[in-house]
Amino acid sequence: MNRKLSVPGFRAAAVKAGIRKAGDKRDDLALVLCNTLASSAGVFTLNEVRAAPVQITEKRLISGKSRAVLVNAGVANAMTGKDGLRAAKATTGEVARLLKMNRSDVLCASTGVIGVQLPAHKMIRATPALVKKLSPNGFDEFSKAILTTDSAPKVAQIYFKLGARRATLLGIAKGSGMIAPNMATMLAFLFTDVGADSKLLQEILSDVTERTFNRVTVDGDTSTNDTLLIMSSGAAGNMPISAINPAAKTLAKAVEDVCYQLTEKIARDAEGGTKVARVIVRGALSESDAVKVARTIAESPLVKAALHGGDPNWGRIAAAAGRSGAKMDQWNLDIKIGGIPCVKSGTASKQFDEKKVAAAMKKAEVKFEINLNLGQGEASFLACDLSAEYVRINAHYRT
Amino acid sequence: MNRKLSVPGFRAAAVKAGIRKAGDKRDDLALVLCNTLASSAGVFTLNEVRAAPVQITEKRLISGKSRAVLVNAGVANAMTGKDGLRAAKATTGEVARLLKMNRSDVLCASTGVIGVQLPAHKMIRATPALVKKLSPNGFDEFSKAILTTDSAPKVAQIYFKLGARRATLLGIAKGSGMIAPNMATMLAFLFTDVGADSKLLQEILSDVTERTFNRVTVDGDTSTNDTLLIMSSGAAGNMPISAINPAAKTLAKAVEDVCYQLTEKIARDAEGGTKVARVIVRGALSESDAVKVARTIAESPLVKAALHGGDPNWGRIAAAAGRSGAKMDQWNLDIKIGGIPCVKSGTASKQFDEKKVAAAMKKAEVKFEINLNLGQGEASFLACDLSAEYVRINAHYRT
Repeated sequence: MNRKLSVPGFRAAAVKAGIRKAGDKRDDLALVLCNTLASSAGVFTLNEVRAAPVQITEKRLISGKSRAVLVNAGVANAMTGKDGLRAAKATTGEVARLLKMNRSDVLCASTGVIGVQLPAHKMIRATPALVKKLSPNGFDEFSKAILTTDSAPKVAQIYFKLGARRATLLGIAKGSGMIAPNMATMLAFLFTDVGADSKLLQEILSDVTERTFNRVTVDGDTSTNDTLLIMSSGAAGNMPISAINPAAKTLAKAVEDVCYQLTEKIARDAEGGTKVARVIVRGALSESDAVKVARTIAESPLVKAALHGGDPNWGRIAAAAGRSGAKMDQWNLDIKIGGIPCVKSGTASKQFDEKKVAAAMKKAEVKFEINLNLGQGEASFLACDLSAEYVRINAHYRT
Repeated sequence: MNRKLSVPGFRAAAVKAGIRKAGDKRDDLALVLCNTLASSAGVFTLNEVRAAPVQITEKRLISGKSRAVLVNAGVANAMTGKDGLRAAKATTGEVARLLKMNRSDVLCASTGVIGVQLPAHKMIRATPALVKKLSPNGFDEFSKAILTTDSAPKVAQIYFKLGARRATLLGIAKGSGMIAPNMATMLAFLFTDVGADSKLLQEILSDVTERTFNRVTVDGDTSTNDTLLIMSSGAAGNMPISAINPAAKTLAKAVEDVCYQLTEKIARDAEGGTKVARVIVRGALSESDAVKVARTIAESPLVKAALHGGDPNWGRIAAAAGRSGAKMDQWNLDIKIGGIPCVKSGTASKQFDEKKVAAAMKKAEVKFEINLNLGQGEASFLACDLSAEYVRINAHYRT
């Protein structure tokens, strides 16, 4: 990023509180503060096992308002029982105390190992320094402090016109392992100066998530901690947008743009991933059938291994489509890889050129097009490949 | 196997027809013949993309009778259109012609690459030699000829009493990659001398499959070719068993024993697999919920990678359970690994001993016990680990 990350009305900071494993020198505690009470909304994991910060933040968002969000990396504070809830309350409470605000206005998110208690004392000890460092230019270090196995920070910032005013939307995400539909171990934070009603923000966020974060898969696993938050400072000075204001569409488009960019960055930074496939399904009886087919192909270990090796094995794409649960007729099935016909009407295409398809499969981004030729349902998914490196990373994460 | 494989009333053989890739010297065409018209039944893949031999064999089994089954390895004859159906008819037709029987009494099964036409001419050319070699002692070579990436033949033979008579049941299977619930790329053949009604055989087979072959997963992928067949020669001389005969239970138990043994062998021979986990789920609201939880854990790439590395990362087991779709309450969740408590009431157990669990995770067979503490539903699943070797095998299967 060449542009400095900043959004009018917000300040950010990060420090090293010692939450990560010994020897890991990265910052691990980060904070964003809004100068005013921000309209806020969130989307959370659908996993039945929900971390303490997810439970607490979801509850605090019922008001539609917040002032700050405290994020830590290293410990997920998941499956930590009542002690975990107490730790999340104590650490957000310390932020509230130092900044003289209500504890219920401080949101929180955690990422890291499951089942280890949050070192609340270390976090509380580091909070004065964290608060002191808050700066309009602190988003860069915020974006680094929240990472775990990510190879690089994931940020997307756009400027857009809202009537005569210039507006800003900044998105910061982390996530590389356990990325799956339903937002596995993904944290993402959106900050904007556009004034907007929290109900509208919630509608936009839920809608956009379905087409962006829920359409990327690394390994099909989902997490206990997934959180996507949006906070609006209103510093742009516009009349706060509600659902009936046409400016809502402009904001929704900006949110979708930023979420889409973050989704792409997550897919490209998949654990051990070396390339991505864009799985495009058309002709399904419904959009939900198209999603089933796209997701099953994107999650298939055999498809992902073939993608990794550049193996033009379209049979695995067909087999994955066939077990997706979507309504289909094998004699209507068409498949293209990199634009080259592989399957026509459920049969190996006469135009199939193994060398050309193998060359297409070796590119950094490969396009799989599947047409069920039954209806109008469409969906697309991003998938990364399955590499030996993925196994190496994930065979020894905890130990 | 020290015991000679054989079943009264059956003969078997295998030859090299040249279906496999050049340089692969293994036999690739195999046949089993019953001396009489055998009561027969089958269970097939639920994949919507179904290979030609699956379509043909399913149709031919409507009669409940068959004389022979022709199996080839190297080419799956899937997604081969009308030419593929013609090839399956021509090759089984040649067996029928030489053995002077109806073509509709010859079943068939194929395994190998998808989308390549079956080399029917090569198979037809090799059929006279194949028929000539038929012998009561040919099952050993049959069991080898049907393998693809398997490291060893998979056979299970048991003898049991049926009243005063001695009965035999022989099972032969292949499958190592793409093994998943719904029987992915698995071929299995059961031969018995017990006389039985084909409807009874079908009932037993469908019931047993649900608890054996459908409860093993290597990678969650399912295939276009999965086939499980049973043929009964009646050579034991018993009064043919029908559903109302109490001997049916004896036969059902024998079928379950053999299928269970074959399932274990498949799991242990998973592509690139080095160890297995037995996932035991209890306390679900229903058996189907228990299956959901067990399957999701067994298929999770993160759980499988942790299993591979011997990493005591029970958080991934909990996260997989949480996204399974089964009804659960995280505060009721208990998890044990190798008998050692890891999670009690949704919280990291105070008895958790990382070193002991790490030691348990390093064994060749690891037990994961999950109790949802909600109801009486139970299920168990066998899962193999995810290794770098799996990726290596599957990144370059076709090329």
